[in-house]
Amino acid sequence: MENLEISLKDLKIDNLGPAKVNCPFQLSNIYGDNIVNYVRDSESVLLENDRDKVVKRIKAGKPLLAFEKAGPRGKIYFDPSKTKAGIVTCGGLCPGINNVIRSIVMELHYRYGVKSIFGFRYGYRGFISKYSYKPMELTPEIIRDIHEKGGSILASSRGPQDVGEIIDCLDRMNISVLFIIGGDGTLRGAQEIYEEITERKLKISIIGVPKTIDNDISFVEKTFGLETAFSIAAEAIRSAHTEAKGAPYGIGLVKVMGRLSGFIAANAALAMNEVNFVLIPEVPFDLRGENGFLKTLERRLEHKKHAVIIVAEGAGQQYLMKDFGRKDDSGNPVLGDIGIFLRTEIKKYFKENTGMYVNLKYIDPSYMVRSVPANAYDSIYCMQLAQNAVHAGMAGKTGMIVGRWNSEFTHVPIKLAVSRRKRLSPEDPLWLSVLEATGQPIKMVNDYKK
Amino acid sequence: MENLEISLKDLKIDNLGPAKVNCPFQLSNIYGDNIVNYVRDSESVLLENDRDKVVKRIKAGKPLLAFEKAGPRGKIYFDPSKTKAGIVTCGGLCPGINNVIRSIVMELHYRYGVKSIFGFRYGYRGFISKYSYKPMELTPEIIRDIHEKGGSILASSRGPQDVGEIIDCLDRMNISVLFIIGGDGTLRGAQEIYEEITERKLKISIIGVPKTIDNDISFVEKTFGLETAFSIAAEAIRSAHTEAKGAPYGIGLVKVMGRLSGFIAANAALAMNEVNFVLIPEVPFDLRGENGFLKTLERRLEHKKHAVIIVAEGAGQQYLMKDFGRKDDSGNPVLGDIGIFLRTEIKKYFKENTGMYVNLKYIDPSYMVRSVPANAYDSIYCMQLAQNAVHAGMAGKTGMIVGRWNSEFTHVPIKLAVSRRKRLSPEDPLWLSVLEATGQPIKMVNDYKK
Amino acid sequence: MENLEISLKDLKIDNLGPAKVNCPFQLSNIYGDNIVNYVRDSESVLLENDRDKVVKRIKAGKPLLAFEKAGPRGKIYFDPSKTKAGIVTCGGLCPGINNVIRSIVMELHYRYGVKSIFGFRYGYRGFISKYSYKPMELTPEIIRDIHEKGGSILASSRGPQDVGEIIDCLDRMNISVLFIIGGDGTLRGAQEIYEEITERKLKISIIGVPKTIDNDISFVEKTFGLETAFSIAAEAIRSAHTEAKGAPYGIGLVKVMGRLSGFIAANAALAMNEVNFVLIPEVPFDLRGENGFLKTLERRLEHKKHAVIIVAEGAGQQYLMKDFGRKDDSGNPVLGDIGIFLRTEIKKYFKENTGMYVNLKYIDPSYMVRSVPANAYDSIYCMQLAQNAVHAGMAGKTGMIVGRWNSEFTHVPIKLAVSRRKRLSPEDPLWLSVLEATGQPIKMVNDYKK
Amino acid sequence: MENLEISLKDLKIDNLGPAKVNCPFQLSNIYGDNIVNYVRDSESVLLENDRDKVVKRIKAGKPLLAFEKAGPRGKIYFDPSKTKAGIVTCGGLCPGINNVIRSIVMELHYRYGVKSIFGFRYGYRGFISKYSYKPMELTPEIIRDIHEKGGSILASSRGPQDVGEIIDCLDRMNISVLFIIGGDGTLRGAQEIYEEITERKLKISIIGVPKTIDNDISFVEKTFGLETAFSIAAEAIRSAHTEAKGAPYGIGLVKVMGRLSGFIAANAALAMNEVNFVLIPEVPFDLRGENGFLKTLERRLEHKKHAVIIVAEGAGQQYLMKDFGRKDDSGNPVLGDIGIFLRTEIKKYFKENTGMYVNLKYIDPSYMVRSVPANAYDSIYCMQLAQNAVHAGMAGKTGMIVGRWNSEFTHVPIKLAVSRRKRLSPEDPLWLSVLEATGQPIKMVNDYKK
Repeated sequence: MENLEISLKDLKIDNLGPAKVNCPFQLSNIYGDNIVNYVRDSESVLLENDRDKVVKRIKAGKPLLAFEKAGPRGKIYFDPSKTKAGIVTCGGLCPGINNVIRSIVMELHYRYGVKSIFGFRYGYRGFISKYSYKPMELTPEIIRDIHEKGGSILASSRGPQDVGEIIDCLDRMNISVLFIIGGDGTLRGAQEIYEEITERKLKISIIGVPKTIDNDISFVEKTFGLETAFSIAAEAIRSAHTEAKGAPYGIGLVKVMGRLSGFIAANAALAMNEVNFVLIPEVPFDLRGENGFLKTLERRLEHKKHAVIIVAEGAGQQYLMKDFGRKDDSGNPVLGDIGIFLRTEIKKYFKENTGMYVNLKYIDPSYMVRSVPANAYDSIYCMQLAQNAVHAGMAGKTGMIVGRWNSEFTHVPIKLAVSRRKRLSPEDPLWLSVLEATGQPIKMVNDYKK
Repeated sequence: MENLEISLKDLKIDNLGPAKVNCPFQLSNIYGDNIVNYVRDSESVLLENDRDKVVKRIKAGKPLLAFEKAGPRGKIYFDPSKTKAGIVTCGGLCPGINNVIRSIVMELHYRYGVKSIFGFRYGYRGFISKYSYKPMELTPEIIRDIHEKGGSILASSRGPQDVGEIIDCLDRMNISVLFIIGGDGTLRGAQEIYEEITERKLKISIIGVPKTIDNDISFVEKTFGLETAFSIAAEAIRSAHTEAKGAPYGIGLVKVMGRLSGFIAANAALAMNEVNFVLIPEVPFDLRGENGFLKTLERRLEHKKHAVIIVAEGAGQQYLMKDFGRKDDSGNPVLGDIGIFLRTEIKKYFKENTGMYVNLKYIDPSYMVRSVPANAYDSIYCMQLAQNAVHAGMAGKTGMIVGRWNSEFTHVPIKLAVSRRKRLSPEDPLWLSVLEATGQPIKMVNDYKK
Repeated sequence: MENLEISLKDLKIDNLGPAKVNCPFQLSNIYGDNIVNYVRDSESVLLENDRDKVVKRIKAGKPLLAFEKAGPRGKIYFDPSKTKAGIVTCGGLCPGINNVIRSIVMELHYRYGVKSIFGFRYGYRGFISKYSYKPMELTPEIIRDIHEKGGSILASSRGPQDVGEIIDCLDRMNISVLFIIGGDGTLRGAQEIYEEITERKLKISIIGVPKTIDNDISFVEKTFGLETAFSIAAEAIRSAHTEAKGAPYGIGLVKVMGRLSGFIAANAALAMNEVNFVLIPEVPFDLRGENGFLKTLERRLEHKKHAVIIVAEGAGQQYLMKDFGRKDDSGNPVLGDIGIFLRTEIKKYFKENTGMYVNLKYIDPSYMVRSVPANAYDSIYCMQLAQNAVHAGMAGKTGMIVGRWNSEFTHVPIKLAVSRRKRLSPEDPLWLSVLEATGQPIKMVNDYKK
Repeated sequence: MENLEISLKDLKIDNLGPAKVNCPFQLSNIYGDNIVNYVRDSESVLLENDRDKVVKRIKAGKPLLAFEKAGPRGKIYFDPSKTKAGIVTCGGLCPGINNVIRSIVMELHYRYGVKSIFGFRYGYRGFISKYSYKPMELTPEIIRDIHEKGGSILASSRGPQDVGEIIDCLDRMNISVLFIIGGDGTLRGAQEIYEEITERKLKISIIGVPKTIDNDISFVEKTFGLETAFSIAAEAIRSAHTEAKGAPYGIGLVKVMGRLSGFIAANAALAMNEVNFVLIPEVPFDLRGENGFLKTLERRLEHKKHAVIIVAEGAGQQYLMKDFGRKDDSGNPVLGDIGIFLRTEIKKYFKENTGMYVNLKYIDPSYMVRSVPANAYDSIYCMQLAQNAVHAGMAGKTGMIVGRWNSEFTHVPIKLAVSRRKRLSPEDPLWLSVLEATGQPIKMVNDYKK
């Protein structure tokens, strides 16, 4: 936590230099005149919200941690007529990527008058000459309708590429602002790019838009696409519940995304309140034993004749030792398939230990959850992230992502955002809602004393 | 085909006896008076539609094959005030089952005044005493909103039960009309029940409503739930396409239901016209070789950089020899998992034979396709099937299912309906549409000469 | 009916000349060889389906009326490499227009190798020089994703234009096949164009694709977009029902499209079975009097406390005398607003005649019903209509539309299709389903004797 | 603002007495032990988020304004075994009401063991004897599936009722906690009830759940149902855009709810980014004149040939003088119909002042926006509001609503919540997003100097 405080101490992003061009869009700096205000760099959003804690900190002479507030600035750094912007999308798909791309282009083109915008194809590979992916010129005409589609029109790839070659490409193409849409691994790469640019003293702004369907970026309240994702996951739960009720001793088992965090599982379970067990990476469970998951499931089936289980893909990995600890190209852990594992274990358990012949129906909606277009809320959210990313980039901010905190858009140093993964704390009110809505035991472990 | 003709010769259902009660709903028998007409038993729907063939048959003195037309009769057989009706749902779930149950109850209750209706639980098990499933009384209040949900409020089970015990139960409970909602296996059971009832000279009418998500009941144009099912399957294709386009050499592979027939696969591929290959049980394909599927896929990827494949679960079973030929409780073949098989084979092929590193994303929407509520069309279709089933039952028809032919509702002898499975002929215009819409080769076999 | 028989006598479309080019897609003419068959001109679909009637006609020496069957022919008339095709969309919007445009282009381009295809903009205006609308070249790239959107990328307009100038334009641009997507008024125009072309001895094929959200084209079972339309209308009913149940003496009133026919209203009422009254143009009703609509509604409210009414825009026009009989540019009658009228009359009636204070909520989903993208079924249907339209056009058929009869695609002479409007007969089984599902009286007129 | 500060000074709710019963659900009060924590009354959520402002306030010795944090308490006030709870829903429908009802019942029943719960029917009328509405006993069985439906199973009504008679009814029925789901007018009534209860020294807790589709409750970040509502409104915009593009000089005009605030209009316009003009009550506009709306619209049409307008029902009311200033039973202003007015004015303007023949399509989705079931997000939000309302009520809080601030659930005194209506400030970042996304002028007034 001390480290964190240190990194939070100075939340002001280093400007590349003094802002010199006036804002193109007439804004005011007076609150109360009914004219939209630009945001001063001194405006901020407190990290901590509790009155007592805030007062205590101030009295103790400790700094109050806060994020810089996002929004249009009074002055901009880059001259739009000479500015070239780039966009790249990395890692797995997520609902809303095209919305972000589109709104960045719209905002640059119509609000700031930046007419030269390039999309780099297939993630960081798009900068690397050996792949020969030609950058795609992005105009309002081309991106007009892309938000109606899931995926990324720029396509994506996993894994890092040579930072030097990426910067050479940016420099050669004369890119002033690069928008990087990606998750934890991608943002680590972005941080390296930012640091190398600083070292080379290039005037290139690096602005990240955090993208992770798992909602696991720290200091960002909610990542885009999450709502859309759990809406779809909720439909899988609906089906699982229908199947569970449709046959003798029916069990519906749904696996959803969530490598390190259970946000999709927890939210989907609340949205479709037919779930009896939510298994997530953050809350360990015993499989066997009197308080273990299987025995608890048996009691539920005896009592209610059917059960619905949702499991995040990263849950219970200790039971899948084969690949435990291995990581893929993007630095994400290689997971065993907990869905298939549970399907087998449950069937086996009931066959061997009980007289019930269970009808287990397994649903893995997999990519259907992440490749759909953004819903209405995420469409707005993506647009606002993009608008604020453009404001930041044009104002000469760099080494930052656009975040959201306390319902306001913020600037977060990339370094801070990747300092750790966000997880769903078992002490979070969201998890309490899950416990209350499912009725599942607080802990399904044998050595837990209530 | 001769057998078929014989069974088609006499499409009149044996009445249980003379109709004796007047129709409760005031209908006319005059066309042109703007009052709804009842249907005479002599009204029919021709099996064959082609003018030349019909004329030729008549000139050759051969009988014209036709189905009895469904609809309300001028007289009914059962006295509503003394009639008790039963409903049972068997086999797998399918969108619209609850709509059928609901409309049977509504029609019996409000149109015919039958107030005593029982739902038997968990399929044919509901008649068997050892399972102790109490029949559920079905009233308009109870079934009011069930059509908003997928599944079956009566729940279901697979496999046959003792015919004698089923009939004992019907007799003991004094059921006059039993509505059986189920597929091929279920209807074979219904036929046995019907025959035994006839033998015992009981006055119990057996009316089937064909239910199969695979659309594989013969002499029935389209079974309920199919449209809803392929609408959902189409969404899986949309995701597969998005994923395929989102990564280098992306392949989207979708497995859908269809044990013996490819109707869901074919229709889904047409509804979401992003599919390049449709693999169905009716059209064999070679995996390897110059004209085989894998080589054809490779050519597609070289040319277009991405591909979408939809495979019906019953396709390519010759490659999954382990369980080949085995059958489950309902008499359906036990299938190997062609989706997992293809995923492995495709990855292996490209790794071993090409320089392309393919990104294959596999989607198995599985139960999500069959457990959703009926869409608007299927809601109407289910209601009309149910209304016509009730008309038939109340008129004393038996041993029949309600079918649809040439856009009219028909009576089809169960015996005929189960005489063979309906399959998607490679000569059917639907398959031509698939070929034209996907651009896939007519045959992906090595010994085929174009 | 005699007139009809005469017009049905010769259903063979005049070919423009002998077919001379081989079919590009390898088809067979043998049934049973598992290869897709082309269709011979002698293949047909009977108009009449009833066995007894067919036999009677033949014995009486009367001709059996039938439509030519649609599908690919063994030979084609136009040389693809030299063929230029045109597409035009006229009249109001309807779900699926873009699907038809897209599939015509895809089929022409990929199946037949026709590379030169033009879309004329804003309906028949697109041919008229004074409007200066430049035709739009249609390529697979341009039309790739248009089916995801409602409306028509070519845009549309109402009303006829000078037939001579249209043909001059076609001739000047060297168009061989013109696909006209439109309703009754548009098709009358198409017939005039066809006749004038015949007179001028030009080799231009005129192929219509019937488009009418009202489903009112004769000799066409179901027009595209209808299912999508009533699905949306059903959602309006769902809302109306929720509102009706949410307040004391709640009434939900929904107005839907249907100028001369009640197909949308009837189908929507069946799809969302919460409707108590369906008012359509084909079934007159008295407003006042003991058996009239208002008194019947009062009885319903007394009994059940809430009511839902769906009214087609063309119903009850006798009560809206102001514009009665007037027609618009496309020859459609100018209608008074029956929705607003009923809202007023119902409120007035209950205030003046009863002690109930009704809460009437009026919903007019209007254009939302027709401007949505096609659903899965309509997507397939539009594709098949388009494929068959292209087959017909390339084979040199003309003066026809692609229809559907007895679940098969057909060729229908335009002259026949516009000979009268299709309406929903009160003797049709569909209307019986409505009566049974709503429980509304067969007739709400005062002089009706049951 | 001074008034506000005063009312904010003491945000602690008066407890009815000392909490005496232990919490039924095992919670911890230690952060960091991985067990869900209960919330202490001292925990709070700051009203103001900006670091500089907070520091300045503290240094000036001014109090830091904050809301009490919602959540389960360590002790509860009411003994569950003796507690009777009531629920009432007032005012217009809104997506999610049934979710709130259901989750209150579930939480009371399963978490706290309160088995006696009554729903009062048709709003405040449900307490008044002359209406004879019997309260409805609410059990888990009865409310099992109600969240799948829009509306309120308790039904609703508008307007206040006699406070004394309401409290007599509560007292007579021995209700301990009353949950009131309603908007501004309803909550004013709730405040009166609370004050009278305090005066009478009764031990009845009054807990409000703010419900307003217009999102106009102060000190509540976002009311439930808003997301669902603007999702549906966005679909109307999609249709309007399709229609606008489908005809020469097409204009799509959509009216949405929003009597005093433009949140639905603004959010819908961002969610479906096809809108060119957003007219809301908070931002006045001139109709005529060089900078007025009509002239601006004309310029748009000249340039782009089509336009989409969304107008909140409360916008431009100065042009509809007839009913200006009048209020309805619930105290809401009676509005003129700005949609119909604009339709007329636009058509008139273009006819009289320009050569363009515009095709204006008007869509009023009206009740379809508010009577749909809650979407996935709102389902969760409603559940959490309900869970927190129950926590508050059981802990003996009263005179408060459950709110949301800075992404945390809060307790807000009813008096504060109804002290003024929340409106969309033209200086809010949301409005800036609208301006940027639509490109509409900051002000459409003639005396505005940019």
